[in-house]
Amino acid sequence: MAAVKACKILITGANRGLGLEMVKQLSEDSCQKHHIFATCRDPDGPKSEELRELVKKHPSVITIIRLDADDPCSIKESAKKVGSLVGKSGLNLLVNNAAIVANGTILTSRVEDMKNTFNTNVIGPLLIIREYLPILQTAAKASGTPGMSCNKAAVINISTLGGSMTRMPSMYGQFPVLPYCVSKAGFNMLTVLAAEELKPNEILCMALHPGWVKTELGGEKAPLEPKESVEGMLRVIGSLTEKEHAAFMDYTGETLPW
Amino acid sequence: MAAVKACKILITGANRGLGLEMVKQLSEDSCQKHHIFATCRDPDGPKSEELRELVKKHPSVITIIRLDADDPCSIKESAKKVGSLVGKSGLNLLVNNAAIVANGTILTSRVEDMKNTFNTNVIGPLLIIREYLPILQTAAKASGTPGMSCNKAAVINISTLGGSMTRMPSMYGQFPVLPYCVSKAGFNMLTVLAAEELKPNEILCMALHPGWVKTELGGEKAPLEPKESVEGMLRVIGSLTEKEHAAFMDYTGETLPW
Ligand SMILES: NC(=O)c1ccc[n+]([C@@H]2O[C@H](COP(=O)([O-])OP(=O)(O)OC[C@H]3O[C@@H](n4cnc5c(N)ncnc54)[C@H](OP(=O)(O)O)[C@@H]3O)[C@@H](O)[C@H]2O)c1
Ligand SMILES: NC(=O)c1ccc[n+]([C@@H]2O[C@H](COP(=O)([O-])OP(=O)(O)OC[C@H]3O[C@@H](n4cnc5c(N)ncnc54)[C@H](OP(=O)(O)O)[C@@H]3O)[C@@H](O)[C@H]2O)c1
Repeated sequence: MAAVKACKILITGANRGLGLEMVKQLSEDSCQKHHIFATCRDPDGPKSEELRELVKKHPSVITIIRLDADDPCSIKESAKKVGSLVGKSGLNLLVNNAAIVANGTILTSRVEDMKNTFNTNVIGPLLIIREYLPILQTAAKASGTPGMSCNKAAVINISTLGGSMTRMPSMYGQFPVLPYCVSKAGFNMLTVLAAEELKPNEILCMALHPGWVKTELGGEKAPLEPKESVEGMLRVIGSLTEKEHAAFMDYTGETLPW
Repeated sequence: MAAVKACKILITGANRGLGLEMVKQLSEDSCQKHHIFATCRDPDGPKSEELRELVKKHPSVITIIRLDADDPCSIKESAKKVGSLVGKSGLNLLVNNAAIVANGTILTSRVEDMKNTFNTNVIGPLLIIREYLPILQTAAKASGTPGMSCNKAAVINISTLGGSMTRMPSMYGQFPVLPYCVSKAGFNMLTVLAAEELKPNEILCMALHPGWVKTELGGEKAPLEPKESVEGMLRVIGSLTEKEHAAFMDYTGETLPW
């Protein structure tokens, strides 16, 4: 079975939900020795307690780093810190997972929600990719192997089927979350353009939908547990090659239409 | 040949470029008696001079209305004004044409440009559709015919191939306009969700790419003249039925991939 072999991994929004579950599974992976930079916006706050507990179990594997996707300075500072920690081996895998959702339709969406979802879900990841690019390039060069894989250097953007123009309209009645969908469609465009820009560096970049999962964002009615979703996503991430560069896939490995 | 038969038409960004050319062709259409609400953000300013000259030639056909896509109040006020002018017949055709472009890549896009393109190209049209919906509904009800067409009630969103995840990456080297593309991908999502929401009202809604056209936005190197692009777009708009509801097409009538 494919597995994530990347040594140095950074995950945003790692204090709860899918981000936390990803840190958990990667840090408990006995076959590989990873180092995980678990980033969150408030490392010392109550919402990061579970993450801090996890670090106590795996202190040499997980480093918590402050990163607020809405705050360009914190993005810059985090990249500086991570850069000095990874040194010459660079960063192999960047997972843009942090995001917010907002409800609304054409009639009801608030301007503030349109702006906030766009800031956190699109502008944040743009700046994160930009600031982390040098150490992703370092990892790509250091790998010495041709082609693309997440073990070498990769950006995985956690997107959603809700960002699919093809699939979202039929789900809109059940999920009236227009600001979120608009931001994620923009995020998908960011993904394919980043893929184009990162190609010469052999840094893999693609969009991944986790399925509908029981988290604060996904809600109680979601059919999937975080465990199953993240197991699937890690399987997909571990199996990616240059063929999946710029792709849009779900946690089962199925390709999704834009 | 298909023609736009809509009586009451509103176009945003109508003081220059494709918007102005659309007002021109519609006001010179001798076969149909249209009334055109040509909206722009500065009706009395130097950039609206050509539009004012055109109104002098067709004073009973064109009404200039102030509408700044970045200013929610001006959108509301314009809808009130147009609402009182169209009365019981309502508004048949709303063309969301106004937009701005901004250059940038992953490495160079400015946060301000990301925000501004999103405001003008996505939030503006969202509020415009919302505020004009009541008079579009009036037109849909007043028509008395089943099905959808732009002669009954329609929202045409002027999008771009640059908003296509499928097509944009290969053009990115030539057009490094990431903030614009991200905003237009979001605009495409807005279009399909608006289409879903407007379906029960039988208001047609779709996204239309004008081709690459010589305007301030398109630049000198564009192969198409505004005349040809707008002739094509009006042909397409005139031929739309419920089959093209939620579609993404270009000025030749070709369907584009998301
Ligand atoms: N759950 C689903 O069904 C589902 C479906 C499709 C896609 N997704 C995608 O999966 C990803 C993870 O979602 P989830 O279900 O795990 O959501 P979640 O449980 O609500 O967790 C969201 C995470 O993002 C963080 N975050 C929010 N704004 C942030 C900011 N400005 N800076 C840094 N971190 C920020 C949160 O941190 P705080 O604790 O500080 O708020 C939290 O760690 C998202 O990209 C989401 O769009 C989820
Ligand atoms: N030209 C092309 O090659 C091309 C290709 C693909 C798609 N498009 C799309 O076609 C549409 C028209 O583009 P164009 O080529 O005609 O561009 P243009 O010549 O630059 O004209 C843009 C128009 O939008 C208006 N506008 C900008 N911001 C506005 C705001 N906040 N409120 C109200 N009006 C505003 C401008 O008014 P001011 O005079 O006040 O600035 C102007 O009337 C756009 O949606 C564009 O994305 C064009």
